[in-house]
Amino acid sequence: MGKVLIIGAGGVGTVVAHKVAQNPDVFTEIVLASRTKSKCDTIAKAIDCNRIKTAQVDADNVEELVKLFNEHKPDIVINVALPYQDLTIMDACLACGVNYLDTANYEPVDEAKFEYKWQWAYQERFKDAGLTAILGCGFDPGVSGVYTAYAAKHYFKEMQYLDIVDCNAGDHGKAFATNFNPEINIREVTQKGKYYENGKWIYTEPHEIHKALTYPNIGPKESYVIYHEELESLVKNYPTLKRARFWMTFGQEYLTHLRVIQNIGMARIDPIIYNGMEIVPIQFLKAVLPNPGELGENYVGETSIGCRIKGIGKDGKEMTYYVYNNCSHHAAYLETGAQGVSYTTGVPAMIGAMMFLKGLWKKPGVFNVEEFDPDPFMEQLNKQGLPWHEVFNEDLEV
Amino acid sequence: MGKVLIIGAGGVGTVVAHKVAQNPDVFTEIVLASRTKSKCDTIAKAIDCNRIKTAQVDADNVEELVKLFNEHKPDIVINVALPYQDLTIMDACLACGVNYLDTANYEPVDEAKFEYKWQWAYQERFKDAGLTAILGCGFDPGVSGVYTAYAAKHYFKEMQYLDIVDCNAGDHGKAFATNFNPEINIREVTQKGKYYENGKWIYTEPHEIHKALTYPNIGPKESYVIYHEELESLVKNYPTLKRARFWMTFGQEYLTHLRVIQNIGMARIDPIIYNGMEIVPIQFLKAVLPNPGELGENYVGETSIGCRIKGIGKDGKEMTYYVYNNCSHHAAYLETGAQGVSYTTGVPAMIGAMMFLKGLWKKPGVFNVEEFDPDPFMEQLNKQGLPWHEVFNEDLEV
Repeated sequence: MGKVLIIGAGGVGTVVAHKVAQNPDVFTEIVLASRTKSKCDTIAKAIDCNRIKTAQVDADNVEELVKLFNEHKPDIVINVALPYQDLTIMDACLACGVNYLDTANYEPVDEAKFEYKWQWAYQERFKDAGLTAILGCGFDPGVSGVYTAYAAKHYFKEMQYLDIVDCNAGDHGKAFATNFNPEINIREVTQKGKYYENGKWIYTEPHEIHKALTYPNIGPKESYVIYHEELESLVKNYPTLKRARFWMTFGQEYLTHLRVIQNIGMARIDPIIYNGMEIVPIQFLKAVLPNPGELGENYVGETSIGCRIKGIGKDGKEMTYYVYNNCSHHAAYLETGAQGVSYTTGVPAMIGAMMFLKGLWKKPGVFNVEEFDPDPFMEQLNKQGLPWHEVFNEDLEV
Repeated sequence: MGKVLIIGAGGVGTVVAHKVAQNPDVFTEIVLASRTKSKCDTIAKAIDCNRIKTAQVDADNVEELVKLFNEHKPDIVINVALPYQDLTIMDACLACGVNYLDTANYEPVDEAKFEYKWQWAYQERFKDAGLTAILGCGFDPGVSGVYTAYAAKHYFKEMQYLDIVDCNAGDHGKAFATNFNPEINIREVTQKGKYYENGKWIYTEPHEIHKALTYPNIGPKESYVIYHEELESLVKNYPTLKRARFWMTFGQEYLTHLRVIQNIGMARIDPIIYNGMEIVPIQFLKAVLPNPGELGENYVGETSIGCRIKGIGKDGKEMTYYVYNNCSHHAAYLETGAQGVSYTTGVPAMIGAMMFLKGLWKKPGVFNVEEFDPDPFMEQLNKQGLPWHEVFNEDLEV
């Protein structure tokens, strides 16, 4: 059906490459590019060298991207590089007439801001160019939005309370490691808390609101209200929501490590001068911490991510709905060589691109996932390794 | 009486410069040198520009040191630079006929080893050159050895048990900061524990042995057995010792920070490759952490460092002896602009140089402080800001 260009060769890029290769009827040609071509070559070799082409590209550089796009002429780019690079890649897409999909919203490198405004500002340009941009198509954001859209389409007359609950009950056996790019992870987790209630955003101290929530097949885990980017588009697209929150589990040790990393200044995103050079502490820390792409081998336990929704059902009665997926780190590793957090992000990115190439999620402009039909995506989740489960009218705890 | 060259312009160098300037009858000429001359100029300006000359020198570079020594022709060098630089400075002293004093033993930069062997190996060369080298003349090592020598000289027929107890009950108001060079501090504190008993060195896990000890004017503080370099020379010079240990207080938060710093790899002393450059994580961390030299302004509370000794007194009866100094961070700051840990290190360094220039601690060779007469040094401690107190035959707790 079409040619895909994947940018990014970390854990998520590894999973995306595996999954697109598993669907050759949809992805007829595959190119994998990153700053370090050897990483792409290693991934391609582990899958199928004959089917995956590799390339070097600096995704901060629009000119290099344009050259790459013109050389390979992909139908769609799956951007699993750094969030700082979303805009340069979108610029290159516009310049070359290529469709776009990513898994995390743009962040300015010098400010930990999680807002869609920069990417939404591309709406008219993508529309005018007749190109589709699908934003935030990993698990959360991504599947969390598709779950919500599915609930709205099939069950609710009026969704009132949305709680996205994200539990990682895995154990990688390291004293400290982040599950994805440590720089992005620490920026996200150390920010102030924020949630939506009665038309307003409520701000909290980092990790101020927390309680134990029970996750299927896992049990109770202390969960913390943090801001997560899909809240911004979901409260816009579902204006009946009275409250929308995002909960994530953290162990005490993880939080202690984060607190110390901040205290000692290693979470700083502004450069310091070291031996006459500008170095950003958090970027240096990233180079010292374990590579999240290499946590897979000894990773045990599973993730559980879902949406807990309360509101008025199609029948006019109050109802609750919980839809979730549990993903085993070890199973993810056996299939792709990457752990569950990379897997749950990479599989939906592939499905999103599949939706586009099949013409099911294709409309000119810039869209969040909940603005498309959730049904074919939900169907693929079951087929592609992220099966989901539904629970109706039980206590949601939140 | 003589000309002194101070190498090092951190917190300790600041204190040494102040204290030598306060004793113009002994130190007739003063030169202050460091890698960054502007730091020396700032210190000189705060004291007396007319009396303190400043110079730039890379103390890793023997040639540069020799040039500096030949230009200024000091009688003695007070080395308060980095412990890695002890040997280059000693080499330059031998080349130029300059006497030597330091406050911390040589460490190889790529290995956190605290041993005198490298410096003791200079014994014959200093002896043949007719030059004096005084090793470890800060507070601990330094005053701890002088206290021990004083106890041996005046009170004990046989010293059997020595516990050096080092409490910092100060509060600098920062979430985390080290009291001296963070690189050296973290290397020292994160090493395995080690103490001497019945002729052997006993090794422990880091911070394995700990108990609350009560410090004068402070109260009980959890104290940890760590290895400290003066133990090596003291058990050699006082062979009657059945046991010798070093205790240091740490707060839980400090230990948590240290543990995390190790877990995340930022205590590593081997270089990693970052953007194609070799960078040692602990050296980068040093650049991010607060500068210990600038902790003084808001530092409250005091230090208490002393020796608790048990054995047979001159009268043949069992006795205990505790000799200690308490030092106020704020008083140290008001006098010198530096906090108490720098003060307690810098004052004894000045006194050691004074002992040499007065001819009281002058003999060709390489010596630890306990190998000299403690009495004139003890007298100066009382005059120069570090008064000591004695307690006889009370429970030592240790």
